[in-house]
Amino acid sequence: MPTIPQLAGLDVIDDPDVLEGLSHDEAEWAPYGKALAAVRPRTTDDVRRIVRACAERLIPIIPRGAGTGLSGGANAVDGAMILDLSRMNRIVEIDTGNLTATVQPGVVNNDLKAAVAEHGLWYPPDPASAPWSTIGGNVSTNAGGLCCLKYGVTRDYVLGLEAVVGGPAGDYGTVVRLGRRTTKGVSGYDLTGLFTGSEGTFGIITEITVRLRPARREAPRTVVGAFGSVVAAGEAVAAVTRAGLLPAALELLDRATLRAVEEWKHLGIEADAAALLLAQLDTPGDEEASAVAEVFRASGALWAEQSTDEAEAEALFAARRLAYPAFERLGPVLTEDICVPRSRVPEMLSLIEEIAARHGTAIATIAHAGDGNLHPLIITPAGDDQGRRAAQAAFEEILTAAIGMGGTVTGEHGVGLLKRDGMRQELGAGVLAMQVAIKQTLDPLDLFNPGKVIG
Amino acid sequence: MPTIPQLAGLDVIDDPDVLEGLSHDEAEWAPYGKALAAVRPRTTDDVRRIVRACAERLIPIIPRGAGTGLSGGANAVDGAMILDLSRMNRIVEIDTGNLTATVQPGVVNNDLKAAVAEHGLWYPPDPASAPWSTIGGNVSTNAGGLCCLKYGVTRDYVLGLEAVVGGPAGDYGTVVRLGRRTTKGVSGYDLTGLFTGSEGTFGIITEITVRLRPARREAPRTVVGAFGSVVAAGEAVAAVTRAGLLPAALELLDRATLRAVEEWKHLGIEADAAALLLAQLDTPGDEEASAVAEVFRASGALWAEQSTDEAEAEALFAARRLAYPAFERLGPVLTEDICVPRSRVPEMLSLIEEIAARHGTAIATIAHAGDGNLHPLIITPAGDDQGRRAAQAAFEEILTAAIGMGGTVTGEHGVGLLKRDGMRQELGAGVLAMQVAIKQTLDPLDLFNPGKVIG
Repeated sequence: MPTIPQLAGLDVIDDPDVLEGLSHDEAEWAPYGKALAAVRPRTTDDVRRIVRACAERLIPIIPRGAGTGLSGGANAVDGAMILDLSRMNRIVEIDTGNLTATVQPGVVNNDLKAAVAEHGLWYPPDPASAPWSTIGGNVSTNAGGLCCLKYGVTRDYVLGLEAVVGGPAGDYGTVVRLGRRTTKGVSGYDLTGLFTGSEGTFGIITEITVRLRPARREAPRTVVGAFGSVVAAGEAVAAVTRAGLLPAALELLDRATLRAVEEWKHLGIEADAAALLLAQLDTPGDEEASAVAEVFRASGALWAEQSTDEAEAEALFAARRLAYPAFERLGPVLTEDICVPRSRVPEMLSLIEEIAARHGTAIATIAHAGDGNLHPLIITPAGDDQGRRAAQAAFEEILTAAIGMGGTVTGEHGVGLLKRDGMRQELGAGVLAMQVAIKQTLDPLDLFNPGKVIG
Repeated sequence: MPTIPQLAGLDVIDDPDVLEGLSHDEAEWAPYGKALAAVRPRTTDDVRRIVRACAERLIPIIPRGAGTGLSGGANAVDGAMILDLSRMNRIVEIDTGNLTATVQPGVVNNDLKAAVAEHGLWYPPDPASAPWSTIGGNVSTNAGGLCCLKYGVTRDYVLGLEAVVGGPAGDYGTVVRLGRRTTKGVSGYDLTGLFTGSEGTFGIITEITVRLRPARREAPRTVVGAFGSVVAAGEAVAAVTRAGLLPAALELLDRATLRAVEEWKHLGIEADAAALLLAQLDTPGDEEASAVAEVFRASGALWAEQSTDEAEAEALFAARRLAYPAFERLGPVLTEDICVPRSRVPEMLSLIEEIAARHGTAIATIAHAGDGNLHPLIITPAGDDQGRRAAQAAFEEILTAAIGMGGTVTGEHGVGLLKRDGMRQELGAGVLAMQVAIKQTLDPLDLFNPGKVIG
């Protein structure tokens, strides 16, 4: 790479093998280009210098955290500078008097959880990638997870951001503070919310203030229900919503998922049923758990009961979290992230089975079912070109079906590269034009993660 | 007014007295101009026609709901068309299978609450104006209220919007749908969040889809604490937060407020203490209520107990809701809406007393204290010019102090006209420039509520 004097003293990487590894996330189907170099800043001032140097040379800047994204949002374009934020992993402050934490973007989600737990506090957003993914990445994709049903998504926890931006705020390399440290505030347009989920396309987030909750006072209860079909499980999910029950989590795993995890990890899970529902309840008392089990049974569960074995309940939730890597071992996985109105979950699950059969494609389904957020995983043997074309066709049919049901093409993974066509289909021309105009306003040189989200 | 053929058949008002009443909100200190006319649309298509007609003639458009705003956000400019949305008050759908409601903007907050309660559902956002204010106005200011502490603000409930816009989306009068009906979704930048709290400056909101919660299964408990000073009450608020307790509401009323309401409404409230704290607890069981009462006592309460008299508890919360109109009877009220980190509440309350004494100004304080959101009400006898200047000086000192404590100049009322200077002071030049640029991008003709928020 050409020498960039302003980067002297920074940790710059141009080893081709390391660079290749830093040039993409875990979306195996998303293309990526050949980056110029990568750099690992440790401070906001490092980021400021890097952005300024890149802007002077019109070098695109691709921010990344742990690279666990599933839509290609961290994939490099040719000639780009990769900004690896994983070394900016300092917890700046845990403010127990105000229930907030301020962190650098490279702090791993579970590390933040552990640190605040020592103070009796809880950071709820829990994507399945929580052991690896970073808060900066979580904010950039507005990550969800298991407990969104009751506790909301990342956006609901982000109070304020520090970011290095360009455009109207000043020269590229200008540091701004968006939002605030208070739980309420309406002074000016909500730029914190606008940056959350923007996948690094408006600037580089260098510090994040999140709200925390008091830790739960007792361990949540788990209710497990086994169903003869995924559609029957979907019916039970819709019935839970209609009954006005609000589990902390309500997850669906189909038989293929349970088997893939069991074959890999030997957790001791029996996968007799076509689908399991896992509900986690954290309102004090047993009443809510009993009510959910009753709804499962009334909806035709083969069996449904409150787990009395903590290790078993833990194994089931572990299986949920390990589903994606378990399938990744078997071949390239094309991951859907559709979200449909909860009443349409059974219909969508039925349609996924129909689409899989028609295209002769293996589709396993895991779902944050209580949110209507489904992750059909389309699995193709490596090197099977015809299978790949069938998978792509199935992928697109599922997106279109979700939109047709009043749903969205991405519930929590982000648009990245893989969902751009689907997003265009979902939003319509007028809204897309507003999105493009805002991107052009905030990043007139198109240097921040170009090509992502709006393409 | 000149004849505008496109408005034929619409309910157009040009009676000067009616027009004057529609030309401002309840911020008595905010200036307003002489509007051209007002119009009361009933459908999105009416709004589309009005916006188009106004854009052709470059007539500014001032949307309003019930006019209960406290920052001048609905105040007319000279020659403006007032768009009174109070007749667009239809509840379009209550979707019990998905826990959502879709409403026109003129639906009154309490009317929505009542309608969804019939289905066992709950719309939590509860500004003190809930009996009168509209959902459209609540969305436009991102209204808060009493139960934000546990249940969040309006933004946390808005899933999707229909709006009539101009700018990049197309000609003025283009109808767009932002956001979605699902509880999760990250396809594209969060324009729904950006419009929420934008005070009508990006376009006219014509339909709103909100999320609902299951109704609470039992009546909340009320804990009342009496304190010898407002600062002591503030210390108790900070202690509640530190103890990891999460009341649904935690309100502060000072003696002046209790007296003003009692003199007006004769609710039977004794106002012996300098300040009362009202906590509302809704976790099942009495444990949380006991813990809050214990923290109040440990923080020096004169007395603190769980209310066993539902009528008494209701009267106290009614007093809280009636505080603003009770003072309005006594003269022009300048309403603060600062929000500070919760640990700084005692310090801020002490400073307000000091500022009031130094300027010789009467300042009563009510507060969503658990959120750090304080409403010092600066009361001036009508026609007292010197008192008015003192009030203005006190107002600005309080804003500056809040910013200095890491707080904000407006927690939930919006910037409108009254908080524009304070907002500029709070945000800094870079962020302000971003805000201005986004406004110019989405409303290049500056027709939608010009002069509000960014000025």
